[in-house]
Parts: sequence; structure tokens; C-alpha cells
Amino acid sequence: MDLTQSANTPVARRALYPGSFDPVTNGHLDIIVRAARLYEQVYVAVFVNPSKPGLFTMDERMEMLAEVTDELPNVAVSSFKGLTVDFCRQHEVGVIVKGVRAVSDFDYEQQMAQMNYGLAGVETLFMPTNPLYSFLSSSLVKDVAKWGGDIDEHVPGPVATRLVARLRDA
Amino acid sequence: MDLTQSANTPVARRALYPGSFDPVTNGHLDIIVRAARLYEQVYVAVFVNPSKPGLFTMDERMEMLAEVTDELPNVAVSSFKGLTVDFCRQHEVGVIVKGVRAVSDFDYEQQMAQMNYGLAGVETLFMPTNPLYSFLSSSLVKDVAKWGGDIDEHVPGPVATRLVARLRDA
Amino acid sequence: MDLTQSANTPVARRALYPGSFDPVTNGHLDIIVRAARLYEQVYVAVFVNPSKPGLFTMDERMEMLAEVTDELPNVAVSSFKGLTVDFCRQHEVGVIVKGVRAVSDFDYEQQMAQMNYGLAGVETLFMPTNPLYSFLSSSLVKDVAKWGGDIDEHVPGPVATRLVARLRDA
Amino acid sequence: MDLTQSANTPVARRALYPGSFDPVTNGHLDIIVRAARLYEQVYVAVFVNPSKPGLFTMDERMEMLAEVTDELPNVAVSSFKGLTVDFCRQHEVGVIVKGVRAVSDFDYEQQMAQMNYGLAGVETLFMPTNPLYSFLSSSLVKDVAKWGGDIDEHVPGPVATRLVARLRDA
Amino acid sequence: MDLTQSANTPVARRALYPGSFDPVTNGHLDIIVRAARLYEQVYVAVFVNPSKPGLFTMDERMEMLAEVTDELPNVAVSSFKGLTVDFCRQHEVGVIVKGVRAVSDFDYEQQMAQMNYGLAGVETLFMPTNPLYSFLSSSLVKDVAKWGGDIDEHVPGPVATRLVARLRDA
Amino acid sequence: MDLTQSANTPVARRALYPGSFDPVTNGHLDIIVRAARLYEQVYVAVFVNPSKPGLFTMDERMEMLAEVTDELPNVAVSSFKGLTVDFCRQHEVGVIVKGVRAVSDFDYEQQMAQMNYGLAGVETLFMPTNPLYSFLSSSLVKDVAKWGGDIDEHVPGPVATRLVARLRDA
Repeated sequence: MDLTQSANTPVARRALYPGSFDPVTNGHLDIIVRAARLYEQVYVAVFVNPSKPGLFTMDERMEMLAEVTDELPNVAVSSFKGLTVDFCRQHEVGVIVKGVRAVSDFDYEQQMAQMNYGLAGVETLFMPTNPLYSFLSSSLVKDVAKWGGDIDEHVPGPVATRLVARLRDA
Repeated sequence: MDLTQSANTPVARRALYPGSFDPVTNGHLDIIVRAARLYEQVYVAVFVNPSKPGLFTMDERMEMLAEVTDELPNVAVSSFKGLTVDFCRQHEVGVIVKGVRAVSDFDYEQQMAQMNYGLAGVETLFMPTNPLYSFLSSSLVKDVAKWGGDIDEHVPGPVATRLVARLRDA
Repeated sequence: MDLTQSANTPVARRALYPGSFDPVTNGHLDIIVRAARLYEQVYVAVFVNPSKPGLFTMDERMEMLAEVTDELPNVAVSSFKGLTVDFCRQHEVGVIVKGVRAVSDFDYEQQMAQMNYGLAGVETLFMPTNPLYSFLSSSLVKDVAKWGGDIDEHVPGPVATRLVARLRDA
Repeated sequence: MDLTQSANTPVARRALYPGSFDPVTNGHLDIIVRAARLYEQVYVAVFVNPSKPGLFTMDERMEMLAEVTDELPNVAVSSFKGLTVDFCRQHEVGVIVKGVRAVSDFDYEQQMAQMNYGLAGVETLFMPTNPLYSFLSSSLVKDVAKWGGDIDEHVPGPVATRLVARLRDA
Repeated sequence: MDLTQSANTPVARRALYPGSFDPVTNGHLDIIVRAARLYEQVYVAVFVNPSKPGLFTMDERMEMLAEVTDELPNVAVSSFKGLTVDFCRQHEVGVIVKGVRAVSDFDYEQQMAQMNYGLAGVETLFMPTNPLYSFLSSSLVKDVAKWGGDIDEHVPGPVATRLVARLRDA
Repeated sequence: MDLTQSANTPVARRALYPGSFDPVTNGHLDIIVRAARLYEQVYVAVFVNPSKPGLFTMDERMEMLAEVTDELPNVAVSSFKGLTVDFCRQHEVGVIVKGVRAVSDFDYEQQMAQMNYGLAGVETLFMPTNPLYSFLSSSLVKDVAKWGGDIDEHVPGPVATRLVARLRDA
């Protein structure tokens, strides 16, 4: 073990919060707000998965993210495809932040974290979800909205508006 | 949700890694080394639990920690009793770092994290254990050492020496 | 917390047991029988998921459920699409009953339960699966039947007959 | 499988919520309030464990429970030692209600539930914890109170008062 | 990775099933019977833990084990203290067999398995518990017996007799 | 319980390690090597799933498996469709070996194991994954390779070569 590597660098003060954000929920927003207090710069990046088109386009997801993080000066919204660690290298990000709700999240995220650490030495830190949002997921919210259930406590206002509009059109 | 709180402060660049460290294992040391790369200052603090005396005294545990983190200039070893968040307040620490090995760790640590966040707004970040050390615990190492099993891969050299000596005397 | 809401109402004595039931297994039937002892009225309702056609049609699933619950006078079989809580509102049902086999069930079901409670104040109660059936699932039974494995201990007789016939035709 | 047993009886409308309640927390109270809406009669019974004296005496625990459930007419506070199913037999209770916070709770509670069902045909139903209280436990609250942490959001007012007094005396 | 080590040796056909067996339950016996079909020789060894005296003495536990495995010619009952892998070395045993009931078992057993593999190259194989016994544990059975509950389905006859006698005397 | 069945037979010395192996990883190979030390004959069999074509054909997967197990004389590579227990019957195999990485694996595998035991009395033994490979899966490796990440530590050399070639062509 090499104990001499120099401590805390600018790289370690930039974090990436990756996800699908189809769409961003209050659970995601809670992680973003808390991460923005902990890091100089937080990249919120929508992962492009061509085989899963989703409900909203990449641009729409980014627009919603930009809107709801508008007042957070150190949060930047972007998108990427390919390896998460490549995004980290390009943006000199040393930390990936993930919200963890439950055991099933944890198992999968731990696999990804260990792979990413092995690939590029990028650390992943798990942030326990706010209990208030521990049962939320984008897909559950879409299910509820699709059938006219009230989602106002689960997603930010602008997202609720778009979600209802989109699902009404469908 | 108040989105306007100012971003990344010195407080967020100081982390606490609390534990019993009876004694420090290679799993603990791995977390310390990685945390030292991510934060300006890392406090490694031995939690004093009067009802669990343990194998080593507080002073011995701190001595071993100091010895094995000697080359890490931004790591400080100390001890505390009482609330973890009180240590954080006194040392202006905004982040508690915990290693998480498995699901059973995760459940308990998530409870502690949510309590500490509620008490003082201190965040807890979970760092996935290095798979190499995922099966290690201080108590397992003590069990093995007690019966003459080889622990050289599980604890730093100086700890192995003390552990063998202590258990031989017992 | 409002402690004054009036106690146990007729609504709390009607339960819904929702599922795909494609087809009903002995594990499902065990939950139905036990729920029928606990509630005045149990609705067993097949959830219509247009994007997952399944092996049996809605009508076939309901027929099989009706057949195997024939001797249970307080069990009614139906189907629904949309929100589970809307079914509960329409039928004045206060409790959703779910069988829980293992940890992976539990995580997901807990999310659903908390969402449903938030949407409509409907409680979800988890009934631990009879250990005899803890490894059963409709999809596992279909897999086994497809390849000629013996399923007589896993599904009620009429279901076994239909299952074998259907898969022979396929 | 005997499908003919008669449905929903008075026994099925009486529930037991057993526990240590040393002391009752807001998480426990939430379960009690919700159970009181679902059953005609809810027994909240303190389990006497001679080998674990605890912080409060049986009488004190029952007093606190009585005080905080005062406005719930269909809740009765008592205590018992011995088998939970014996309490159920004596009070003609058909259902045991347990709150489940996390996976580690679930594993243990499922074992108890299956044993109790085998011993006396008493059902155990798991009620998912309110996410707001998912991280609470009596022992965590006592730890926090012991060191002067704020517990006002975690236990009912009268309990907080007693807890602080008791721990100050200690 | 050295792919050339010679295959299946006598060592790999001898298995150890270690435990506390205070007392042996039907769940343990099920594992023993199944292991005896898979290995030439199965050692069932009571682990001596001086700090946990238990209900039965080592000799009593071994007597009960001997009695209930009497008809299994390739099962030998013994006891040991110290490292499990030392027992394996002395008896030229290559495989440790453990029953796994639930997730909480699995986490802990996996740690032990990885430690034992590291110490001595001894493999641990997990045998899924018979669902019929998945909720059984020695301590749960003792609790039930202590209060007069029926344990005849949970432990072999001779064990039930001793257990009732012992607890009546206490 | 029939305690008289004869012990360890040739059947119990032949093991099956089934999987998709699309493609074989170092985690799979580790299980194969260890199983080959424990059994006289190990069948590594690719499960044919017509509804999931995968990246490599059955033949390619078998070629890669044959190549990387070339030096293991008691390992035979084959494929099968249908019930795993039918393969076992045809090849007189008494034990299915599965690697288990994490809790989510464990839940699912336990269901399969109990079904297979019920269908044909075939035992399934779980072998804890080498911690070094605990985060590996074929799909994760394919994801990494697809985007040019280094997979040399995750799959055997010949597999890495084919994987890179295949994904470059795609």
C-alpha cells in the first residue's frame, strides 16, 4: 500500500452524480443539494443509454435538471455516453456520488463502484437517501402519474407539470 | 427545500472516520488512505465505549493508529466519547466516512447516518470496502490470532506484533 | 400525529391481494386462504399490464383463481388496471395484503407500500410466505412445466392441467 | 389444504403488538396508531425479559405506553412473559403486528413469525415502518439522550421528559 | 492462477460440519443427512466456546449428536476448540459445510469462509436450508421449550426429551 | 427422515457448474478451478436460452470455456437446454455448484436450489466468490469493453481478445 500519495487535490473536490433522471425526482434533488454542499463542483450527468429510450429525451431530462438546480451555482448539468470513468477523466472528477435507498441498490452499486475504482482509481461514495424519499424512483413516479395519481410530493413542480402533460398526450 | 445554502466550505473538506479500532486492520487502513486522498483533513477517532473494554486500551489503539498512519500528513488520530456529531461540531467536521462491507453493515450504518444527519446536519458517506478486505473485522482477526493463525495479510506489521504478544500473555 | 381517528371500520375488514397470477401457484393460494381467515372480504385482483401479455389471458387467470378459491365464500376474484389504490377506493378496501418470500421481495414491496400509503392512506401488510412455498414463483413453475418437470406440488390441480396443456400447444 | 375454515372471526379482529418498549418511540407509536385503525382491539404488550433489565422498569414502560395511547380507545397496554402465542391464546388474539424497518429486521421477524404460526396458528403481519422513523430504535434514542442530543423528534413528549430525567440521574 | 493442481483428492471427500449444536435441531440434522450423501466422511464437530457455556455441556451435545446420527455410518461426532481450519488440517478435511437460512446468515458465513480459505485453502460450501426448517435455530427452540411450547417438530425425539427435562430442572 | 440412504456415491463426486458464460470471466474461472479440486468430474455447461441470444453464440462460449479450462483434465464443457436437473440425470451428476457474490444472487439461487432439490433430489452447493472477483459479471465486463475500458484483469486473455474484436466489429 502506497501511503505517500499527496492528499486532497482539486480533483477530489469535484463530484459526479450520474443517472438516468427520466425524470429527476425529489429524491435525486435531495442528493444534488446535499452534494452541492460537500463539493466545489458537482456534475449532474444524464447517462445516455441508446437501448432504453425512456419517456423524456436527453435534452428534456437535462432541461428539467437545469431548471430545478438553477439556484445551485456549483451544479452543472450535462450528459454522457460510454464509461462513467471517462467522464471523470475528462472533467477531472475524483468522486462519484450515488444515493442508496435499500439493500438491492447497495449490491449493484457496490459492484459498479469496485469496477470504476479498478478502472481509473475513481472513488464512489454512497449517500444514504433521505428517508422521506426512500421509496421513490422515477419509474414508480411515472407509473403513478400515468394513472392520474398525485405526484406533487415526489417530483419538483416543473417536472410534475411536464410529466402530466407528456403522459396525457401518450 | 432551501436550495441557496452556500456551496463547499472548509467544513466539508474535513472528514471523521470513527471506530473501535481494537485493533486497526488493513481494511480500516485502506479506508483511511483513501479518505486522506479525498479530504484536506481526516480525523481517525477511537470511540470510547466504557461498557466494552476490548483487548487494547484506548491509548494502545491510538498508538497503533498513529504508527500506521505516520506517513499520511493530513490524518490525525484522536479519541472521543459521547455523540459522534459532538466531535464533528468541535472539530468543524462536515462529513463522517464509514466503510461498508456487506448488507448487514449497511442497514445499521444507514440508521446511524440518518440519526446523525437529523441531529446536526452532518453527512455520512459510505465508502465501499476494498474487496480484498471485505471479509475482515477486528474481532475475526483477534479470533484467528488467538489460536495462532497467520494474520500478516490482515493487519499492518506493527499491529500483528502487538496482537501476537498480547494474546500470548493472556 | 392525529391520535383521534376512529378505530377499526368496515373498510379495514376488506383486503385486496393483487398480483399477476400467471398462473396462481400454491404459494399464492396459501396467502389467499390465510387472508380469508383474517378479513371479512378478500379481493383477489389480477393486475392488467398491457406491456406484459404473459402466458394466460386475464380471463384465464381469473377463471383459474375462481376455480381454486371456489370454497372460500368471502373471496372475490376480479381484475384491474391502473393504480392499486384506485381499486381500493372503488371497493372500499383499507388493506393490501402481500406475500413476502425473501429480502429482494421485501425491498420492492416496501417501496410500493410507502407510495400507496402516501397516495391514499391504504395500508399494506406483509404476510410471510409459508416456508413450504418460499421458493415458488409463477415464472419458475412455468419454466419447469415447459420442460416437462413435475409441478403437481407447486400449483393446484386445475392449474397444472391447464399449464401442461398450454405449454404442449406452444 | 383445508379451504373450508370459516372466514373472518372476532379473533382476527384483535391484534397484539409486542415489544420491549424501553421506551416507546415515535416509530412504535406510529405503528400503534395505524394498527388501531385496522383492528377492533390492539394489545400493546411489553415483553418481560428477566435477563435484560433495561433502563425503565416494566411498570414505567407500561405507564409511558398508557400515557401516549391515552386517546386511542381500542388500545390496551399490558405486559407478559413466556410465549407470545400464549398471550394470544389467553386474549383470543389472532394477529401479531410487527413493524419492519429494514432487511435485518425482516430476517429475524420472519423466523419468529413462522415459529408462532407453527405453534398456534397465529398470523404475524408486517407493517412497513413510516420512512420518517425508519432509522429509529429505542437503543439509539437512549444513546443520543445519554449524551445530551436532542430527542424531541424521536419520542413522544412525556417519554423525552422521563428519559432525560432518568439519564441525568444515572 | 495455477490451473494445474491435481483434481479431486481424498481430502475433498471429507467434510466438516461445525457448530454449537446446543442442542442439535431438525434443521441441523437435515444438513447432516444430506452432507452424508455427498461425502465419504462427515465430521460433525461441536465448537467449544469457553465464554459461552450454553445450556448443555460439550459432552451432552456430542451425546445427542451421536444418538441422532447413529444410523449414518460415515458421520463422526467430535468437538474442537481453536481454529476451524486446524481441525481440517488434523483430520485432512478439505471442505467445510454450512447451512444457510437467510441473508443475515449469508453475510457472516461468507466472511468466515473467505478467512478460512485464506488461512488454509479450505473451501466452505453453503447448503441451502430445507425450507421446512428455515426458521429454526437452537436458541429459538430453547425459548419455546422453556415456556412449555411444543418442540416435537423442531428437534429429534431424544433431544426434545432432554431439553424438556433440563429446562424443567432449571 | 430416512437416515439409512447409503453414503457418498460416484454421483456425488460429479458436479455441474451451469451458466450463460457470455463470456466466461475470471470469476467463473475461479469457481471452475476450485470445483475441479473438489470433484472427480466437473461439467461446465452453457445454458441455452433461445429468448436471450447474447453477444457470443453457444459454440463460441463453449470454445472459450474449453480454451481456458484446457489444463483441467476433469473439466468437461458442454451445453444444454431445458431443466438443469435433466442434465444432472443424464450425466449422473449429484451436485450443482453455483458461485454466490452477494445477497441478491443468494435470494434467487436459493429459490432455484430448492426447486431443483424438490424436482430430482439434486443438491446445490454455493461457493462464495473470491473477493477479488466479487464485483465481476459478464454484462459489466461487456459494458466496459464496449467503451474501450481495460478488461485484462477481469477475463482470461483469449476471452479479452475475442471480446474486443467482437465489440469492435459491432
